[in-house]
Amino acid sequence: MNISKDQISSQNKSLLKSHKDDLDFLREKLSGKKIDAEKIITDLAAFQVAIPSWALGAGGTRFGRFSIGGEPRTLEEKLDDIGILHALTRSAGAISLHIPWDIPKDTKAIKERAASHGIAFDAMNSNTFQDQAGQQHSYKFGSLCHTDNKTRKQAVDHNIEVIGCGKKLGSKSLTVWLADGSNFPGQNNFRVALLNVLDSLKEIYKALPTDWKMFIEYKCYEPNFYSSVIPDWGTSFTLANELGPKAFTLVDLGHHLPNANIEQVVSTLMTFGKLGGFHFNDSKYGDDDLTVGSIKPYQLFLIFQELVWGLKNNARNNPSPAWMIDASHNVKDPLEDLLQSLEAIKIAYAQALLADQERLAEAQQNNDPAMAQEVLQEAFRTDVRPLLHEARVKSSAAIDPIGLFRKLEIRRQLIKERGQKTVATGL
Amino acid sequence: MNISKDQISSQNKSLLKSHKDDLDFLREKLSGKKIDAEKIITDLAAFQVAIPSWALGAGGTRFGRFSIGGEPRTLEEKLDDIGILHALTRSAGAISLHIPWDIPKDTKAIKERAASHGIAFDAMNSNTFQDQAGQQHSYKFGSLCHTDNKTRKQAVDHNIEVIGCGKKLGSKSLTVWLADGSNFPGQNNFRVALLNVLDSLKEIYKALPTDWKMFIEYKCYEPNFYSSVIPDWGTSFTLANELGPKAFTLVDLGHHLPNANIEQVVSTLMTFGKLGGFHFNDSKYGDDDLTVGSIKPYQLFLIFQELVWGLKNNARNNPSPAWMIDASHNVKDPLEDLLQSLEAIKIAYAQALLADQERLAEAQQNNDPAMAQEVLQEAFRTDVRPLLHEARVKSSAAIDPIGLFRKLEIRRQLIKERGQKTVATGL
Amino acid sequence: MNISKDQISSQNKSLLKSHKDDLDFLREKLSGKKIDAEKIITDLAAFQVAIPSWALGAGGTRFGRFSIGGEPRTLEEKLDDIGILHALTRSAGAISLHIPWDIPKDTKAIKERAASHGIAFDAMNSNTFQDQAGQQHSYKFGSLCHTDNKTRKQAVDHNIEVIGCGKKLGSKSLTVWLADGSNFPGQNNFRVALLNVLDSLKEIYKALPTDWKMFIEYKCYEPNFYSSVIPDWGTSFTLANELGPKAFTLVDLGHHLPNANIEQVVSTLMTFGKLGGFHFNDSKYGDDDLTVGSIKPYQLFLIFQELVWGLKNNARNNPSPAWMIDASHNVKDPLEDLLQSLEAIKIAYAQALLADQERLAEAQQNNDPAMAQEVLQEAFRTDVRPLLHEARVKSSAAIDPIGLFRKLEIRRQLIKERGQKTVATGL
Amino acid sequence: MNISKDQISSQNKSLLKSHKDDLDFLREKLSGKKIDAEKIITDLAAFQVAIPSWALGAGGTRFGRFSIGGEPRTLEEKLDDIGILHALTRSAGAISLHIPWDIPKDTKAIKERAASHGIAFDAMNSNTFQDQAGQQHSYKFGSLCHTDNKTRKQAVDHNIEVIGCGKKLGSKSLTVWLADGSNFPGQNNFRVALLNVLDSLKEIYKALPTDWKMFIEYKCYEPNFYSSVIPDWGTSFTLANELGPKAFTLVDLGHHLPNANIEQVVSTLMTFGKLGGFHFNDSKYGDDDLTVGSIKPYQLFLIFQELVWGLKNNARNNPSPAWMIDASHNVKDPLEDLLQSLEAIKIAYAQALLADQERLAEAQQNNDPAMAQEVLQEAFRTDVRPLLHEARVKSSAAIDPIGLFRKLEIRRQLIKERGQKTVATGL
Repeated sequence: MNISKDQISSQNKSLLKSHKDDLDFLREKLSGKKIDAEKIITDLAAFQVAIPSWALGAGGTRFGRFSIGGEPRTLEEKLDDIGILHALTRSAGAISLHIPWDIPKDTKAIKERAASHGIAFDAMNSNTFQDQAGQQHSYKFGSLCHTDNKTRKQAVDHNIEVIGCGKKLGSKSLTVWLADGSNFPGQNNFRVALLNVLDSLKEIYKALPTDWKMFIEYKCYEPNFYSSVIPDWGTSFTLANELGPKAFTLVDLGHHLPNANIEQVVSTLMTFGKLGGFHFNDSKYGDDDLTVGSIKPYQLFLIFQELVWGLKNNARNNPSPAWMIDASHNVKDPLEDLLQSLEAIKIAYAQALLADQERLAEAQQNNDPAMAQEVLQEAFRTDVRPLLHEARVKSSAAIDPIGLFRKLEIRRQLIKERGQKTVATGL
Repeated sequence: MNISKDQISSQNKSLLKSHKDDLDFLREKLSGKKIDAEKIITDLAAFQVAIPSWALGAGGTRFGRFSIGGEPRTLEEKLDDIGILHALTRSAGAISLHIPWDIPKDTKAIKERAASHGIAFDAMNSNTFQDQAGQQHSYKFGSLCHTDNKTRKQAVDHNIEVIGCGKKLGSKSLTVWLADGSNFPGQNNFRVALLNVLDSLKEIYKALPTDWKMFIEYKCYEPNFYSSVIPDWGTSFTLANELGPKAFTLVDLGHHLPNANIEQVVSTLMTFGKLGGFHFNDSKYGDDDLTVGSIKPYQLFLIFQELVWGLKNNARNNPSPAWMIDASHNVKDPLEDLLQSLEAIKIAYAQALLADQERLAEAQQNNDPAMAQEVLQEAFRTDVRPLLHEARVKSSAAIDPIGLFRKLEIRRQLIKERGQKTVATGL
Repeated sequence: MNISKDQISSQNKSLLKSHKDDLDFLREKLSGKKIDAEKIITDLAAFQVAIPSWALGAGGTRFGRFSIGGEPRTLEEKLDDIGILHALTRSAGAISLHIPWDIPKDTKAIKERAASHGIAFDAMNSNTFQDQAGQQHSYKFGSLCHTDNKTRKQAVDHNIEVIGCGKKLGSKSLTVWLADGSNFPGQNNFRVALLNVLDSLKEIYKALPTDWKMFIEYKCYEPNFYSSVIPDWGTSFTLANELGPKAFTLVDLGHHLPNANIEQVVSTLMTFGKLGGFHFNDSKYGDDDLTVGSIKPYQLFLIFQELVWGLKNNARNNPSPAWMIDASHNVKDPLEDLLQSLEAIKIAYAQALLADQERLAEAQQNNDPAMAQEVLQEAFRTDVRPLLHEARVKSSAAIDPIGLFRKLEIRRQLIKERGQKTVATGL
Repeated sequence: MNISKDQISSQNKSLLKSHKDDLDFLREKLSGKKIDAEKIITDLAAFQVAIPSWALGAGGTRFGRFSIGGEPRTLEEKLDDIGILHALTRSAGAISLHIPWDIPKDTKAIKERAASHGIAFDAMNSNTFQDQAGQQHSYKFGSLCHTDNKTRKQAVDHNIEVIGCGKKLGSKSLTVWLADGSNFPGQNNFRVALLNVLDSLKEIYKALPTDWKMFIEYKCYEPNFYSSVIPDWGTSFTLANELGPKAFTLVDLGHHLPNANIEQVVSTLMTFGKLGGFHFNDSKYGDDDLTVGSIKPYQLFLIFQELVWGLKNNARNNPSPAWMIDASHNVKDPLEDLLQSLEAIKIAYAQALLADQERLAEAQQNNDPAMAQEVLQEAFRTDVRPLLHEARVKSSAAIDPIGLFRKLEIRRQLIKERGQKTVATGL
């Protein structure tokens, strides 16, 4: 199932006149404010977000899961799905693999297939939160934190294998998300658990190639409901500092306590050069893993404001973070959900790119919060969609990706090809 | 797998001397405060908590599930497990069934087996949050709230079947927990969804026998992450009022937004005579379904304080609520977890029974919050465990249920009987 | 201190060309979607939001307060401040008074002054959360809920006086916000407190003129930190139902527990015809009373979506709610803060007015959450500001109210007139 | 107003028989479990908690304040109030001063008065969250973070003066709590604000005597409602690491986001040797500053469990933290409130001291969460009050401090001495 350039250009043709009018109008408005629309369009076109291999099927909850149909059954089909997203948007040019779900049988073939879609291999993800068939030691009571050193070693070895797998594919980073924690007071000795994790991470860090990065994810709760071993950015950051210059913190938008100021966390990490990666999603209650921008689009913009500013004012050489969508699709078509997420990310990015940083800095220096708000909301209230459309037109992607996805009846075709009752590996 | 009276009395014998000392000491202390220990012991012995049929196996999360071994494979084995709990405590004398998981093949045999354990049939639970094999209409987008009236009718019919099933077993109530809701703004029309639920409940209510009650559960989120159709007590209460005198609100301790004052909700519902049922568990973040009393034992006591006071000052004839434990057991042995929950419930109940209501009322009347706190904490800080032990001794149950459970190696025997890899139906 | 029509038209003149271009472009876009821009502009121009008399000075916290200077010292000056807001926006045509802070010495003169600014008298607010000099009974332990009936009577009488005061001014509603509650478990008997409030409200209700409404506000906490007597919409709604058809619930956006779905509360109240009033503000943590739209503008839009839809589909004859801004201005100039709030409210209202309700209803009926989101976000992402500008142009208000406010150096003049160290009565 | 030894011993005499019975019973129980009651009693008697000078009067909220009467008007009277607490409990042997509220006029006289009560001078507190009369630069927009370096310098100088003041009195530590932050997105540049604070703290750190410690407090929000410059332990810890070995993090129980696992934060800080101080209070919603143990006594116990274990397993030489109560007393008599707080702290401490660390460690090693919970709850459910009573008897303090406080009608006498309408400096 591929989308051809013709199909895209044919749809674009029908929308082009209206798009050009919108773009011209916006370009003129921006130019009146001395904002270079072309620069923003170029930045937008260059911005790529990795798609996790496990986000292409229907997600579920502990209460159940409802199939969507046509879900990818193999790594090859996952690449094809991302190929669809990338063809439509030219923004999804990377995949993030999850081991052991995605171990390639034929590495060369997989690399070729990815290349044919224009897809790179982003961060590799290890899995020590589930037991695999035939696994010797159970992760029921943790992995890198486990009280038993044989279990810890097994988990360390798994991570090292994941690195090995990634090296073959051309990945350059490892994301460690730990479910390790406890459900009850007293279950864990907090200190023992934390120092065990630190020791285990040191072993993995040793195996990290010199040009790789390690991303340490944090999460306040779930699947453990009393404590996580790495519950917050402070713990992840401390671990990263103990490990060394290749270790970074990874921020997932859904992994915070209620009311957390995530944009400030982003700023603090960049201040110290330790923001390594980003998992986009949205949420109202916990780690709800909803479509990016579906609940709190202004927060998303404020985060991008920090990212854009931080990368331009980069005294501590924070690397450009690894961007990834990490959402779950319980009721929407996963591909449509991802298209909406990509759109929301790019809208927030575009808004941040056109925020008047000079006037903002001036308002901040003058302690003029009303004016600072005016500047930020001026950017946020601007309808930047023509810039996204133009970035896609220039990249031979679709002006209206969801519209085309529906018009081409892609889900129907995927179901025809793959069947109604397929289940993607993943959550 | 049964526990004999001999096994219990033999353990009790070894603990009796120490128990009697503790009891005598406490009895004297209480008597000095004009508190009748015998009355409390009698109340404790009479207090029965239903065990849900789905809480006897290992629970899990969307990230995975780790087997415990020896989990009950059939309704018969579920009854046997509760039989163990009841033999050890004489407090677990009821089961709450979940349909379609627990449809008896031979009703008479099931009733006899339950009777042999001393177990009654408490509230029946319907399931419209999962699709069953061969089901015509999917509940992916709701059941009683569904936009399609055929799906609503199917869900209504299911509930009516559940009533029918319960009638045969001797149950007297139906609990309706709805997963219905939405994951995204706009997905549902709130009003349409709410009025559809009301209409559907009216249909079910019509089928309710005159001596039955309907319990309407509320939950703020999960498995839907933007809205639930019945998110809070206010909605459940409004529905119950619209339905009539047999409809009541059911409170589950884990179904509230952060920081909610649950004891006040309990009081408000009893003030208007509409508190129908109670699902006990504990939580730190969301609907964590942890062991009762493992996180916030003081909150549990405060809730029991409202229950005890409300049932004694019962102007609106609130019925005695249906008590049930609704927890999930991801890392503990489910039977041990339930034993700990039963203990925590009875401790809180005993503390509430010995709180000095007269002095409390006086402090309240005088606006003396320091004294009100003294009264409540005096009760909470009292070590009431000897009263629980005595209630069990008098009922031929075990003084130390968990100790005996471990000593008799019951889990090992269950695994031997049933196997290591059994999976109980349930969550 | 008045703003003249000339000052406004002179500023508008300089912005008119650019505004007309924007408006023409947007009008054409909307017309392509069969949306009648003129209708929206008319609705926007008609929409009036009351300004509370206590929100015109600098606010503070328990940790301190920093003066802004030029704050209004009298009711006359408060009217003048709102006169400035109304001249700039033609959207702030009402004041909400707080008694005893705002008792007019000369009712006739006050009415004339208000009329000269085009300002009506919206809901009257009573104050039983502070003790006034010479007050016989203290509200330290509550007012309408108090255990002492003399204190309750004093609070009831005060509310009746507030009604009397409002009758003279032409107000048609009374807002009751109760600080009543408790700081500690046991301090209050929940039921006694609730029934006392109900009894007290019945007394006040009796004194309510036939063409008046009573708005019952709820708040989960603060200034009490364990319980509020009216903590949630369910309690307020129950009280309103007990009182009768003139009693309604009032929603303040900052009075909810973390993560509450406020738009759903709005929908539920309108479903039963009981949404009476609205206090706009924004918040991140608690009742932060920040500028409307400064934190969660999408939530604000979703709320307006419910309001717009609910008033168009008004089976239970919910009255048009009383709109008011209830914010605190700790670091911004209060008048600028209110101008930003008015702008945010109207933006959300305009977005809701142009949401495609038909396509939304279709997506809902088809259980197509992706499309429902597209519809809502299409509206939200539209830059509707030209519609607001045009509504103001047509009302002889300022295209750029904050810009003009700054250009005319109004705060500087107010300070010159009134002094630097004035303190407005209020919070 | 002093309490004489005779008054105390006379009350104790009347309670001694009953106390001895309780103690004997408990001692025997503990001895059966190989727990040395005497050791716990000694530890309890030695445990001293500082009382902040600002917590001796009635607290308030932004909505108002209700006087209690007899509040201390001077530093001398504050010392006298703590003298009462210390006489009654022998646990309140330190005061924590707040500058500029508590600048001694006659240092020698103040030291003598403190010594006469047995009171030491604990951590000094600076105040840069309010403007003082005649202050040159305002803290409205921050202090150590301010964009203007003159304001920063003024705040730095103030802190250095506070150190100077403390040196004269014999204090050995400075607590820095910063209200610095922002109310709106964009108001602050997060990075600039953070680095300004770091620079300012470095200046203060330079002025710190070699035997002093600096405690850096964090708080997620209030009085700022969008961001705090030091919002969480991670930021405070990072600052402390940048500053050096004399800098530590201070934990205030009320300064966390909802659902935070504070006991884990305590453990993490001790793991790295950086837990410097502790502010005790309790809360349900935000920084409610309620009586310690009045809402979540089990959490308090779990925190003490970490403290006790951490100080016994102190690989990184974490100093013994500075203990202080930081609560607000809006409806209780402040002295009664503090007596209840002291009692709750010591109960939690005693429970932690008798927790069976060996069995707990074994359960943790074996991944036996049910048993770990049994161990912790065994300690928590034990009625340890006889141990507290005995520690007081041995220290010539009152068995029943609140009872004696009321019997002696101390508040009545304070009002007689000081008047009804006094207002203590403070919050």
